[in-house]
Amino acid sequence: MSDARTDTEAVERANTAFYEAMERGDFEEISELWLDDAHGAISCVHPGWPVLSGRGEVLRSYALIMANTEYIQFFLTDVRVSVSGDTALVTCTENILSGGPAEDGAELGPLVGQLVVATNVFRRTAEGWRIWSHHGSPVLAESGEEEDDENAS
Amino acid sequence: MSDARTDTEAVERANTAFYEAMERGDFEEISELWLDDAHGAISCVHPGWPVLSGRGEVLRSYALIMANTEYIQFFLTDVRVSVSGDTALVTCTENILSGGPAEDGAELGPLVGQLVVATNVFRRTAEGWRIWSHHGSPVLAESGEEEDDENAS
Repeated sequence: MSDARTDTEAVERANTAFYEAMERGDFEEISELWLDDAHGAISCVHPGWPVLSGRGEVLRSYALIMANTEYIQFFLTDVRVSVSGDTALVTCTENILSGGPAEDGAELGPLVGQLVVATNVFRRTAEGWRIWSHHGSPVLAESGEEEDDENAS
Repeated sequence: MSDARTDTEAVERANTAFYEAMERGDFEEISELWLDDAHGAISCVHPGWPVLSGRGEVLRSYALIMANTEYIQFFLTDVRVSVSGDTALVTCTENILSGGPAEDGAELGPLVGQLVVATNVFRRTAEGWRIWSHHGSPVLAESGEEEDDENAS
């Protein structure tokens, strides 16, 4: 049970590191956290996007998103980790606050909130847990709750 | 390589079986295809929904969706399978045609098309490959392509 707890904690740290790297706009760190080609084909779905496959497509998308994001902060909630052997599944809610580049000389564009849920799959490697798949999607209000988030997503 | 090919084919069959069970509205088959609790915590995200965790929540959602779906057909494209040990990752595009219950005596409500991308994670069990996680999300037009799909999602 101690090992299981250690695995779960290590996976949660890798998951947190992924979002912190996004917040810092640290492309090198993002690039390192994704599994390399020798271990298998990675895939990524950003909210509302089609599937991106392979390091080329996936890392280009992060470069593009970072170029268009002046500020981004993730408040993670509902983080659940399930580890099986050398694979781990993480689900979480990304409460996102972000802003694009400013217009007309302001320091920052208007901030928008976004409610996104993510499924992140990690693989154990000699260098630590690495991202095999990320799938994020907007939570759209259907129940009458969270109507404010629908406009932002 | 022969074993790898066999694994990939078996995973693809399990993935197809999942969608065919949905088309038939076969709740028992859906229930069997999801990993049981003894193997770990399952999670499921339907397009626009928050995360559902555990067999109780996940299977209730399928019962609810089936009760509100008179007709559904999945045309799967871009199916990619990546197997690592006892875990497999599948991404695919679900080109969905569906209809709800009819109103005013018609046999079927109006059919709507929907463009959804999915990441499905499978685990190898003694009974075959079983679903550990399903995450589906609407593809929203951003590039000017696929604008027709935005309205349907």
